[in-house]
Amino acid sequence: MTREWNDLAQGRSRRLARAAGFAQARQVRAEDAVALLEAVIEPGDRVCLEGNNQKQADFLAQCLAQADPQRLHDLHMVQSVLSLPAHLDVFERGIARRLDFSFSGPQATRLAGLVAENRIEIGAIHTYLELFGRYFVDLTPRVALVTAQAADRDGNLYTGPNTEDTPVIVEATAFRSGIVIAQVNEIVERLPRVDIPAGWVDFVIAAPRPNHIEPLFTRDPAQISEIQVLMAMLAIKGIYAEYGVDRLNHGIGFDTAAIELLLPTYAESLGLKGKICRHWALNPHPALIPAIESGFVQSVHSFGSELGMERYVAARSDVFFTGADGSMRSNRALSQTAGLYACDLFIGSTLQIDLQGNSSTATRDRIAGFGGAPNMGSDARGRRHASAAWLKAGAEAARPGEMPRGRKLVVQMVETFREHMAPAFVDRLDAWELAERAKLPLPPVMIYGDDVSHVLTEEGIANLLLCRTAEEREQAIRGVAGYTAVGLQRDRRMVENLRDRGVIRRPDDLGIRTRDASRDLLAARTVKDLVRWSGGLYDPPKRFRHW
Amino acid sequence: MTREWNDLAQGRSRRLARAAGFAQARQVRAEDAVALLEAVIEPGDRVCLEGNNQKQADFLAQCLAQADPQRLHDLHMVQSVLSLPAHLDVFERGIARRLDFSFSGPQATRLAGLVAENRIEIGAIHTYLELFGRYFVDLTPRVALVTAQAADRDGNLYTGPNTEDTPVIVEATAFRSGIVIAQVNEIVERLPRVDIPAGWVDFVIAAPRPNHIEPLFTRDPAQISEIQVLMAMLAIKGIYAEYGVDRLNHGIGFDTAAIELLLPTYAESLGLKGKICRHWALNPHPALIPAIESGFVQSVHSFGSELGMERYVAARSDVFFTGADGSMRSNRALSQTAGLYACDLFIGSTLQIDLQGNSSTATRDRIAGFGGAPNMGSDARGRRHASAAWLKAGAEAARPGEMPRGRKLVVQMVETFREHMAPAFVDRLDAWELAERAKLPLPPVMIYGDDVSHVLTEEGIANLLLCRTAEEREQAIRGVAGYTAVGLQRDRRMVENLRDRGVIRRPDDLGIRTRDASRDLLAARTVKDLVRWSGGLYDPPKRFRHW
Repeated sequence: MTREWNDLAQGRSRRLARAAGFAQARQVRAEDAVALLEAVIEPGDRVCLEGNNQKQADFLAQCLAQADPQRLHDLHMVQSVLSLPAHLDVFERGIARRLDFSFSGPQATRLAGLVAENRIEIGAIHTYLELFGRYFVDLTPRVALVTAQAADRDGNLYTGPNTEDTPVIVEATAFRSGIVIAQVNEIVERLPRVDIPAGWVDFVIAAPRPNHIEPLFTRDPAQISEIQVLMAMLAIKGIYAEYGVDRLNHGIGFDTAAIELLLPTYAESLGLKGKICRHWALNPHPALIPAIESGFVQSVHSFGSELGMERYVAARSDVFFTGADGSMRSNRALSQTAGLYACDLFIGSTLQIDLQGNSSTATRDRIAGFGGAPNMGSDARGRRHASAAWLKAGAEAARPGEMPRGRKLVVQMVETFREHMAPAFVDRLDAWELAERAKLPLPPVMIYGDDVSHVLTEEGIANLLLCRTAEEREQAIRGVAGYTAVGLQRDRRMVENLRDRGVIRRPDDLGIRTRDASRDLLAARTVKDLVRWSGGLYDPPKRFRHW
Repeated sequence: MTREWNDLAQGRSRRLARAAGFAQARQVRAEDAVALLEAVIEPGDRVCLEGNNQKQADFLAQCLAQADPQRLHDLHMVQSVLSLPAHLDVFERGIARRLDFSFSGPQATRLAGLVAENRIEIGAIHTYLELFGRYFVDLTPRVALVTAQAADRDGNLYTGPNTEDTPVIVEATAFRSGIVIAQVNEIVERLPRVDIPAGWVDFVIAAPRPNHIEPLFTRDPAQISEIQVLMAMLAIKGIYAEYGVDRLNHGIGFDTAAIELLLPTYAESLGLKGKICRHWALNPHPALIPAIESGFVQSVHSFGSELGMERYVAARSDVFFTGADGSMRSNRALSQTAGLYACDLFIGSTLQIDLQGNSSTATRDRIAGFGGAPNMGSDARGRRHASAAWLKAGAEAARPGEMPRGRKLVVQMVETFREHMAPAFVDRLDAWELAERAKLPLPPVMIYGDDVSHVLTEEGIANLLLCRTAEEREQAIRGVAGYTAVGLQRDRRMVENLRDRGVIRRPDDLGIRTRDASRDLLAARTVKDLVRWSGGLYDPPKRFRHW
């Protein structure tokens, strides 16, 4: 028996033949979209639906959810983020059965419910970069449903600033005999630039409304507390200055927004301009505007864009990656690579930290997933190029007799109590219970304790690199856990000893007076201040305009 | 003083204006290439020269080396691989001064000499993926000199199967106001497909001869020894079958070629077809042909292509990633991502291993660099999706009280003695001496011992995951180091104890009889056999044709 070696190509031809009636020169009318999907997709297909934490192929998601479950069933969905109701409707309606994904923020509770009812079979929960990697190994999409700002009549795509995941999804699909369908906001005669060549795209649909984009990285400075200002001062003086952190990534949140807003004030007063925080792998956070305007920042490469930042980014092409049309070119896969391998520090917040320093955002009823943090928040063991920060961290972590190597700085920054007085430090992560309920093979840990270099709270900084035993590590964490039960159970003598050795550093030890931690230090105290810093270029979404 | 925010864009306009005389609709004549470079590049510029371990922008490299050092000097070269004489000529002639790179195989000795003479200032030695990451952070090229198979009159590029590094270099440069110059083998009316959109490319030059491509991954089966067959049997039965390794990457070399050639024979006889080795991140190794033809392999995504494999790959589109034109689309950045995050195992050879399991290919007089191995040959700490192999390795490595997590399998496969009876196992790596001489901040270790899961020699397999102390680890390594000095100094009792615990496994323990390790087991014993397996589709380069 001679084997056929072009099943995939034949499958592609078969699908295209069935869809022939709907398309004119690759264009399909919006009212034919459901029928197109029913014609092109086959039961059991692996389908990639573009949707990350910002832009969404929302029209195509809704069309897929409207398909006839008699015709489309048992699909295997692969997608970065589950965030729209339609993403779960396809499972509820029996169209899809299996799911591989990264993040499910807004749908985390409903997802957990559907898993409990056996309506969804979870393959695995990933970080973005590993899911992208699997698109080229064992999770290659048969059909990709993506979104772009515009297409021309040939089928070239223009994504504008929100390029995000589109290139990696399309490359994996188009180059393995898959089918690529793009929803676009408009079809134009001439694109401002080409982000995806026409030859990689099979069908283009002008959607009835523009794709949804979520302003996920906007934090209103008005909501930053003085405790957060204090913690930001600790981060800047106790970590950034100490190691000379020049290339970095910040997580989402008010804690890190406070750091960004202290760069032109507090960090500048310490003489740190030009010495720290020059290169970023970061979305265009509005909170970074004052640091950019003050000349702190040399470059920013972004995973995606941020609503309202379009004109500002275009006017600051020395700093951001922009195209010939002036607008940003983001790229999640490449920016995650940059964050993993070319940054010396990741700093982020979390919900819970245990006694080993493991942290998680999972609770028993929510399968939230990972997003990008574990990728950035871990030591890149394959990194070989040196920098001052990386060498110093590596030297601190060195054990006698071991080969010297560098080390990434991974900082967990939390207030000891979160809202509703929930302690951030716990004996046991809720992740254990979720793993049991959702039958996950391992507890969903966001950042593992042995990847963490520092835990930072309002009580001080615990440098875990300097801890020599598991017991020291536990006491270092207890030693900054404040009045939580975990903090109260500290061994006072051991904690004082750790402080003497510089493993724990209090604000006092760093010459930081708590009473100086005032909101007055923030370079911008309101969204309006940010607009002012930007010279009117930043155009915040309505929900952030309080004037 | 108002700051200008478009220095980069202005620099770009200035350079383009100077080059205006040379170009007609983006095309520049080959005889004007040196003048174009002198017009576009400015002293001190960061210049990326495309050259990886396969295809080379060799014409542009030679043109750059011919530039006038009065006009072009102090350049900062960033490039994947140093492999052509011209790559070093630019330093010798005083055109370039600083170098950031990954790999320097053929030029390693000359490079070490120039460093010793202070003619080259090495920024750092990277793996490919981290260098690509830095292109978006602090090593963004000002000018990129790349190569492609063909261009059309608009400037769209077609790379053919050797796409390799081109997309990542061009994206970093074009979207930060840099200038992209491409040498192409030909200019055609209509490209078979578009790999790089015209809008990302500034100048196209039809080079006087096709770009150089090196068949780096071809291994002649005739040179595989029976010891290598034995080691391959150990790998298949003792590791691949044991863990159910289904997604993997192989290093270059005869050791791993032997494994590839035993899949359709030995592995098939063990009933492993469909259970192991289905998904690969791998260049199209000719030695993989029999496994593909036997139905072992489901998919292969490639960093680059391999000379002679073009027709075979095109005819096996179910397995390889190919474009609408039928030829492969490779992509080094994405395949490295796949190898890092979506593979459960990396196996490779090395020159030296020390008592902690650290390995290196550095010798005192050669700065060879790293390439891709450290990226694949390390545990991806940010990985969160589970697989059977990853969970089993993680469980073996687990320490009491620590959060359970998965683990990558990283196997070092070496004969105890290499050519000229040089022992593979040493007390101290030559890398220490090289670090001192070349003033590197750390010894250039290829794979760190604590990232290695198994050491495999003809004497057996040492499972380092199961070692509980540094001493056990050392004895496990000594226990498979044969008659080398390191092996002879083993503590026999401890080694026997490790064998009883299954930490060390001899061929006997796995039911493998040394006398069965015959070359007859190889699915192909010559290059001609490979051609036969391929049905005449594989067309080996002349140097591999001995008939």
